[in-house]
Amino acid sequence: MPESVFLAACRREPTPHTPVWFMRQAGRYMPEYRAAKAEQSILELTRRPDLVAQISLQPVERLGVDAAIVFSDILVPFEPLDLGLSYAEGEGPTIRRPIRRPADVERLRPVDPGRDLAHVLEGVRRTKAALAQRFPAVPLIGFAGAPFTLASYAIEGGTARTFTTTKQFMYEHPEAWHDLMQLLATLAGRLLALQAAAGADALQLFDSWVGCLSPDDYREYVLPYTRHALALAGEAGVPLIHFGTGTATLLEAMAEAGGDVIGVDWRIPLDLAWERIGDRAIQGNLDPAALLAPREELGRRVREVLRRADRRPGHIFNLGHGILPGTPVANVQAVVAMVHQGA
Amino acid sequence: MPESVFLAACRREPTPHTPVWFMRQAGRYMPEYRAAKAEQSILELTRRPDLVAQISLQPVERLGVDAAIVFSDILVPFEPLDLGLSYAEGEGPTIRRPIRRPADVERLRPVDPGRDLAHVLEGVRRTKAALAQRFPAVPLIGFAGAPFTLASYAIEGGTARTFTTTKQFMYEHPEAWHDLMQLLATLAGRLLALQAAAGADALQLFDSWVGCLSPDDYREYVLPYTRHALALAGEAGVPLIHFGTGTATLLEAMAEAGGDVIGVDWRIPLDLAWERIGDRAIQGNLDPAALLAPREELGRRVREVLRRADRRPGHIFNLGHGILPGTPVANVQAVVAMVHQGA
Repeated sequence: MPESVFLAACRREPTPHTPVWFMRQAGRYMPEYRAAKAEQSILELTRRPDLVAQISLQPVERLGVDAAIVFSDILVPFEPLDLGLSYAEGEGPTIRRPIRRPADVERLRPVDPGRDLAHVLEGVRRTKAALAQRFPAVPLIGFAGAPFTLASYAIEGGTARTFTTTKQFMYEHPEAWHDLMQLLATLAGRLLALQAAAGADALQLFDSWVGCLSPDDYREYVLPYTRHALALAGEAGVPLIHFGTGTATLLEAMAEAGGDVIGVDWRIPLDLAWERIGDRAIQGNLDPAALLAPREELGRRVREVLRRADRRPGHIFNLGHGILPGTPVANVQAVVAMVHQGA
Repeated sequence: MPESVFLAACRREPTPHTPVWFMRQAGRYMPEYRAAKAEQSILELTRRPDLVAQISLQPVERLGVDAAIVFSDILVPFEPLDLGLSYAEGEGPTIRRPIRRPADVERLRPVDPGRDLAHVLEGVRRTKAALAQRFPAVPLIGFAGAPFTLASYAIEGGTARTFTTTKQFMYEHPEAWHDLMQLLATLAGRLLALQAAAGADALQLFDSWVGCLSPDDYREYVLPYTRHALALAGEAGVPLIHFGTGTATLLEAMAEAGGDVIGVDWRIPLDLAWERIGDRAIQGNLDPAALLAPREELGRRVREVLRRADRRPGHIFNLGHGILPGTPVANVQAVVAMVHQGA
């Protein structure tokens, strides 16, 4: 594969320009995604490797981003785990059989990701093949949900605001919590490694909701499991991105858990975050809401992120979280152009 | 009024023990609150000064806290503003006429808090009179929502997760945003000062959702208005508490905006937060979810907060956000005992 600015930045090597990609770069905001998706739910899409490849390439073609990410969902392991996962049109996930008692952890069906998530891996393979043919210089990112974020969905039964049910489970049933996190960490780590074996050139672990925790809770209830997941993923030998939101006080601990690249959101200025994580690459950190701002305001914000990164090797431009549904495609294109031009 | 440990701590004077109170200490978790509330909505309650006094005193009697807070709601100004505020049983607020366009700001009805929120001020007066009679050493806290948090409810139309609509309004219509924030800041500041005139011994400004913003956005779109609100409130000459959640990267700017006491949540260790705010008192910062933990785990967490505060004058023990509905009263009582005993 030809040299990639994205992979070079993951290794903190100097690059001719700052690489850029976007979380949820394939998604509802894009007309060609909506056309390909038709009436299917996200879960149905993830079972169609041909559509996965097609959708994953859309932003490469339309936006000229420096990396593709395989189209999937962090909750795909909930299907073989038998948690009763579904998505209603335009809604977040619903988990019909949430984990509420220790016995619920014991009843989880054992999952072999190579077998039970073979469709996801086939999606990676097809996407990589399509990229190799049409965009051979563009690397592919595989991903998985981190143990805490997966556990929070499994316990809350869907999208949450305060994560009280998750915390209560964690405090009341520390042994069952350990078993659940161990299981999810192994599953996430193996799923990541298998995606690399299927052709992914880098891997991202999404710990989207970990920012609801105090640093002490993170260290006690989360860090060992995230470390385990990243260690398993690391056996694949490709760069690892470790991402979370609201993590301003967790960054040192997250870096300790692992990741060649640490993903941060807009709540912390990029240069301050970089000081805190030390010798790692960094990914971020434009507020996704900025893509809804007038062009001048958007430009000002993109330049501010670039100014704080200061062309220091190891910056991957991205948002602090996924692209929002109503985002104008032209604004996303404009950001790619600005980042590539260095202003 | 006899000397109060709470007021002394606000002034960073040494106290015989650490003062403690809880946000939402009068609320659904308490059986006597549910009995007094009966079928009435929160808004109906705020129009009944006799019930306001009764409910505000419940936690003083039951928990032995070092301060009372007047029972009210940060959204009470939305009624005279004619935003169509309502609360369904057990649900968050709904705003039937949200602010979505600049014209919506212009149509806001002018509010004179002394006249239009006279029932709230009468609640303060009655509560203070009841305290003076039954608990003369316990001071009363009045409060208001901060301009950003009020604006976010008005724009989102209720409780939000990403605050995208608010940010979009802010970026697209900076002049209307300015007008709205100026109006809300004046309203909040005057409402606070009037509560002090009605008998409140301290005032808290709740900027509960400001943690969704980057530090740059906070400084540009929020700080001037919060400063204005706190300046108006400060004319009353009583201690001001400035509170927010998720504010780990905003603390310096929040302290700059004002407040004798800065309230912080559990996401930042208390000692680190204190270093960042400098010469102010600090309020916090137990995770409300800890009150749902087994007693031993809860005790460990309370001791950790006290350890980080280290009896340095100017610590007011509190949660990092309001008491959660399912909290056992006995756990809240246990925390008061632990804090008063210093362990």
